[in-house]
Amino acid sequence: MRHIRPILAALAACAVVALPVAAQQDPIQNAIGARKAHMQLYAHNLGVVGGMAQGAIAFDAAVATRAAQNLERLANIDETSYWIEGSLGIEGTKALPVILETPDDFLAKQDGMKTAAAALVAAAGTDLAALQGAMGALGGACGSCHQAYRSR
Amino acid sequence: MRHIRPILAALAACAVVALPVAAQQDPIQNAIGARKAHMQLYAHNLGVVGGMAQGAIAFDAAVATRAAQNLERLANIDETSYWIEGSLGIEGTKALPVILETPDDFLAKQDGMKTAAAALVAAAGTDLAALQGAMGALGGACGSCHQAYRSR
Repeated sequence: MRHIRPILAALAACAVVALPVAAQQDPIQNAIGARKAHMQLYAHNLGVVGGMAQGAIAFDAAVATRAAQNLERLANIDETSYWIEGSLGIEGTKALPVILETPDDFLAKQDGMKTAAAALVAAAGTDLAALQGAMGALGGACGSCHQAYRSR
Repeated sequence: MRHIRPILAALAACAVVALPVAAQQDPIQNAIGARKAHMQLYAHNLGVVGGMAQGAIAFDAAVATRAAQNLERLANIDETSYWIEGSLGIEGTKALPVILETPDDFLAKQDGMKTAAAALVAAAGTDLAALQGAMGALGGACGSCHQAYRSR
């Protein structure tokens, strides 16, 4: 093993050290925080393409494509480390414990998000009508997971 | 334009509606929140590969690769919408206004992060020594941006 001091020094520059202490030390809070951060980045980008689909923002193919590509990259992030034992069905999260009981279905729903996001990338570069259609499908992908796995 | 009611209904299922109201309504707070969420996801994944590099977690090539691939996907997210006019040099963020004055250098440093994350993916599938070397480089990429563009 190499000397770890230089590695520690280099890592001190990374965002790790900026995390709230609770999230660093408690793996459950770390996982819940990561899920919420991920959803927030979905929302940040959905605000752009959703705003265009609703007519609140003028359609711009380049800007829409950028947001759609971001959504696709987010959808392809592996979430294994988010949905850990003990992090579901507790205060501070709406995620239901059934997620860990039906992992195949949960992953299939994530795949649905990947597919919808990929379709959105293509649609975003086409025109507003295409974007609106693809946003409907993406909303369906959001909903199918939230309905099954998030408490009301 | 299609009817937007079904689109709105579908989007209501998405994370957009779960965002804090302030972040939804205020584009500045939305941008700052997205930056912090992005950094939190870096930290979440860096905790895995950093823990292995430091010897705090046993090296596991598959788990390390998963975290490294996530870091690479995050590094490739387009951040144009994060660093907007008015969102720098204000309370609640350490990001410096100089970011918007030297966009080429800022983007070059982001490219450095992409390169380091791609190298980490390859190293994570190799062995611990390779991972440690790649983590040093990744830490350097974090640091080069933070030193230039984040207040102390």
